[in-house]
Amino acid sequence: MTDDVRTPAEREQLARRVAEAMRASDTAAQGAGVELVDVGPGHAVTALTVEQRHVNGHRICHGGYLFLLADAAFAYACNSFGTPTVAAGGDIVFLRPGHLGDRLLAEATLRSESGRSGVYDVTVRSGDTVIAEFRGRSRAVPSMSHPPGVTD
Amino acid sequence: MTDDVRTPAEREQLARRVAEAMRASDTAAQGAGVELVDVGPGHAVTALTVEQRHVNGHRICHGGYLFLLADAAFAYACNSFGTPTVAAGGDIVFLRPGHLGDRLLAEATLRSESGRSGVYDVTVRSGDTVIAEFRGRSRAVPSMSHPPGVTD
Amino acid sequence: MTDDVRTPAEREQLARRVAEAMRASDTAAQGAGVELVDVGPGHAVTALTVEQRHVNGHRICHGGYLFLLADAAFAYACNSFGTPTVAAGGDIVFLRPGHLGDRLLAEATLRSESGRSGVYDVTVRSGDTVIAEFRGRSRAVPSMSHPPGVTD
Amino acid sequence: MTDDVRTPAEREQLARRVAEAMRASDTAAQGAGVELVDVGPGHAVTALTVEQRHVNGHRICHGGYLFLLADAAFAYACNSFGTPTVAAGGDIVFLRPGHLGDRLLAEATLRSESGRSGVYDVTVRSGDTVIAEFRGRSRAVPSMSHPPGVTD
Repeated sequence: MTDDVRTPAEREQLARRVAEAMRASDTAAQGAGVELVDVGPGHAVTALTVEQRHVNGHRICHGGYLFLLADAAFAYACNSFGTPTVAAGGDIVFLRPGHLGDRLLAEATLRSESGRSGVYDVTVRSGDTVIAEFRGRSRAVPSMSHPPGVTD
Repeated sequence: MTDDVRTPAEREQLARRVAEAMRASDTAAQGAGVELVDVGPGHAVTALTVEQRHVNGHRICHGGYLFLLADAAFAYACNSFGTPTVAAGGDIVFLRPGHLGDRLLAEATLRSESGRSGVYDVTVRSGDTVIAEFRGRSRAVPSMSHPPGVTD
Repeated sequence: MTDDVRTPAEREQLARRVAEAMRASDTAAQGAGVELVDVGPGHAVTALTVEQRHVNGHRICHGGYLFLLADAAFAYACNSFGTPTVAAGGDIVFLRPGHLGDRLLAEATLRSESGRSGVYDVTVRSGDTVIAEFRGRSRAVPSMSHPPGVTD
Repeated sequence: MTDDVRTPAEREQLARRVAEAMRASDTAAQGAGVELVDVGPGHAVTALTVEQRHVNGHRICHGGYLFLLADAAFAYACNSFGTPTVAAGGDIVFLRPGHLGDRLLAEATLRSESGRSGVYDVTVRSGDTVIAEFRGRSRAVPSMSHPPGVTD
């Protein structure tokens, strides 16, 4: 990325173009209720409003959906530079419950990278309250076909 | 757990009773397609058949659903001793894709515990192929109300 | 921490006082070559100059010493508020090698906390180059005796 | 590994030969007091007797040395198949303190692998008591020069 000759505006544009192509292709996250709120180079925000289908008997959001929300932000962020990139793994710490009706935001940011490996932090919040902290490990796979529509 | 005066048969029965109560209460995992296959003291198996709603454009299961499946097995296993227990966090390594139509099994096993903290390993497989390795960190919360129906 | 009635100056002073007491007591990290460079509320920097004893045959710093360096910064940071706090665990990603003669700096920062649990990020750098990313999980143990000399 | 045409005896021999070469080269772990106790294909045991230099003022082994001990077992195990392999990262959960004078054993076992990525579990024990659970993520680097003496 350091030898990227694009202008900042071109990089913003590329991030949005990749995200659009991913969104058209990734129906799973959207089907689960995840929305893309914002995306830029090495950065993305996704949202989930906690519905009945996401909660257990205590009306608390299932940890699997918190992970899915964070993972979706991570996927948009780590693909934002235009190189096809997959999640190699991730760790999540559950700090507080998300409740039925809460609108949760997951904000992903590139922390560090080296060669084809990247580390991204994703914080899941409800308003100002931190619900969970996720750290994703990405792996660039340049040989992988770009998502449909991305011909960078 | 070491000072548990129950017989092995009673512990098996308790694990099943807790799992039934959890299942009645936790509609989120079931709504996502997760089934409980087996449960015993410190052990549980869940299953997910990868449907259209779980996959992206490449017909590969979204990592969030792999986590959700593993997390569900972890939840049954760490509550199987009768003490209300929550997930403090977890790490997942994605090793291979799960494909549309695959029947995935997640097998959770207690690895170690100390006081109120536990470490559980969950392996997600499709047939003999390992799809993902999850490690969950649990925290017992004895003061928490038991799931409805559990009066241990 | 949110209900802390201390002034910022008092909190800075407390962080330094705790760190001094920890340093007097924790001979292991110092014996390994770790120095305390800076400390404040929820924040600490430690340093290690990579010596012959830290490297393998390829003159690359052993991952164990990178972890130890990061863990030491984490320990100073998570104890800086005056409540005795232990490391519950941590994850490290190794991004680049540290070489013989490098002066490594580990910078720890509080990311989030909830009740007695905390999440700290520690970045290990050599100059501007990131060597490793560590994330520590802390657990406050108010009942634990303070390090000698700390009577807050 | 699955297409390995070596006999079990040859694989045992290879694991020992690699370990000997690593031991000759890796002075850091040994300088810290780590001994190699056993090694085989995908498996290794290391030991550390907790000395004054490893403990803090409470006579408890520094977490950094617990990690270093586990990481050393992990390194022997993930290189045991003869392909040069590095640690990409690892997670450790601290369950109980290791005390001055304890002889700690770290047992590493291959859990899963896919392509060049591997997952290894390492349990650190003092007698029958589990002190820590480590999970290492390895990355094979076939292009890397073998440790001196290994010409497989």
